[in-house]
Amino acid sequence: MGSSAAIPTSSRNLSAQLLALGEKYFLIDCGEGTQMILRHLKIKINKIGHVFISHLHGDHFFGLIGLISTWHLIGRKTPLHVYGPPQLQEIIELQLNASLTLLSYPVVFHHTSIVGIQTIADAGNLIIKSFPLKHRVPTTGFIFEEKPLPRKIKRADSDRYGVPIYFMEKLRAGADFETADGEVIPNNLLTEDPPKPRSYAYCSDTAYYEPVAEHVKGVSVMYHEATFMNDKEVAASEKMHSTAAQAARIAKMAGAGKLIIGHFSARYDDVEALRNEAAVYFKNTVCAEDLETYIIENQDPEEVCCP
Amino acid sequence: MGSSAAIPTSSRNLSAQLLALGEKYFLIDCGEGTQMILRHLKIKINKIGHVFISHLHGDHFFGLIGLISTWHLIGRKTPLHVYGPPQLQEIIELQLNASLTLLSYPVVFHHTSIVGIQTIADAGNLIIKSFPLKHRVPTTGFIFEEKPLPRKIKRADSDRYGVPIYFMEKLRAGADFETADGEVIPNNLLTEDPPKPRSYAYCSDTAYYEPVAEHVKGVSVMYHEATFMNDKEVAASEKMHSTAAQAARIAKMAGAGKLIIGHFSARYDDVEALRNEAAVYFKNTVCAEDLETYIIENQDPEEVCCP
Repeated sequence: MGSSAAIPTSSRNLSAQLLALGEKYFLIDCGEGTQMILRHLKIKINKIGHVFISHLHGDHFFGLIGLISTWHLIGRKTPLHVYGPPQLQEIIELQLNASLTLLSYPVVFHHTSIVGIQTIADAGNLIIKSFPLKHRVPTTGFIFEEKPLPRKIKRADSDRYGVPIYFMEKLRAGADFETADGEVIPNNLLTEDPPKPRSYAYCSDTAYYEPVAEHVKGVSVMYHEATFMNDKEVAASEKMHSTAAQAARIAKMAGAGKLIIGHFSARYDDVEALRNEAAVYFKNTVCAEDLETYIIENQDPEEVCCP
Repeated sequence: MGSSAAIPTSSRNLSAQLLALGEKYFLIDCGEGTQMILRHLKIKINKIGHVFISHLHGDHFFGLIGLISTWHLIGRKTPLHVYGPPQLQEIIELQLNASLTLLSYPVVFHHTSIVGIQTIADAGNLIIKSFPLKHRVPTTGFIFEEKPLPRKIKRADSDRYGVPIYFMEKLRAGADFETADGEVIPNNLLTEDPPKPRSYAYCSDTAYYEPVAEHVKGVSVMYHEATFMNDKEVAASEKMHSTAAQAARIAKMAGAGKLIIGHFSARYDDVEALRNEAAVYFKNTVCAEDLETYIIENQDPEEVCCP
């Protein structure tokens, strides 16, 4: 929903992304104004069950308290799970206490840690992990991994071997089949591989930090901040942000399928130059555009390949 | 900048007003998104030296921390004076600490109190006072009063009596003049009354509360919340909000010159009915419109008169 760094500009909002998988919505960071954008996009906000806050710089979380308040005012009942640095809970609770608000729904805080990669949530078809980024305050990235899908049954083959209906579930789970006369049919004769699970990694804010590539190895689509271009590499390093080239080098190292760069400094009116800089290292790079929708899917390796 | 109550709608923003007197800007309440609206309106935000927060319900202050952060990021140097309930300071400071931010400029907090009317600021040509409103959490209104202007010299008369240049300042301040041969010329023969000082009162959020009328007696222009219409008078009373008719009765009682109603419930798409309800009690009523500019001036009593 927003591709701007630090301060909103006339054309770019602050950091916030909505990941949708079926009927489940996951909110990733929540800059000021996010609730207005969700409303503008006509998003059914009650489908958001989980909010992930990367770190406590205002452009990534100042919108959360407003959204939490609005959910209360419209009478939300279902629990909200909030993942973020421990002090986030204190900040939210202090403001709710100041307004004497007893929320209409439970908020469950899950404190993130910057020690290694950690599984933080199991939500339907997704496993969500946090991993450390390198920034001026404790910051984590998040990776959303689809659980492996069941194997696909080859109907003609399973019919030929007389696999009964009740056994189909086991077949999808990978079991071999034993016929009435004791012959064992290997699973791979009866089923084929399901589509590769998809995954999405969110990496903002961070300096160039190679361990990130390890944590998101083989990710389908990766968002990585690119606050600056390479001519500002020293400034980027001092402020613990990345350049477009650095983001692309991490994506290449991770073997990502696609790279979305964002969190652009207000100095850049046109961000095409950042994309071009990144594409030198990682061809399948696009610039995040506010209010735009991106499909998370595994890429054809031909499209991804690096120079 | 915003006329909506509690939650933003597709056409109405949250509470925030900018009062301008010459080069001095005063921000009154600061709902989420206020910094974006200021940017949209191309307001020079560094001219804002004072912020007044009526109470700690989120729709009136969640935008302040973002604005304070943005001022820091653009390198503000001049002090900011923030007037509001004591806990506001704690909320702002906790969030600055969480992001390890040492602001580039001083923020001076002035804690408001709900005991009677109090002079809280003397800013150039304005005296600003707070006064208690009646709401679910401690809430104050604010009145901005122009200081009395100097008397206007009647040039022909002052020339006739030979008033020297050095005495003009005293004449403007109201002194009588003694001629060379000892004759005392009363000031009112040499000067005329200056324009009546203008004043603006901000009254949100509040239930119907008659002491407000006393505190803003004779105000030029009064903003008073009108969350509901009179058919919701019971709900208004329970939630400690006002109806349009109640706002108008306070304005009439105060002898205000003009009434602006706002803080409209999201239930009202069209607010003209609220204006009509108010106008029964106070003719010179207008509805607050988002992003609109209102001139604060004393009214011709003919225009104001009540039924």
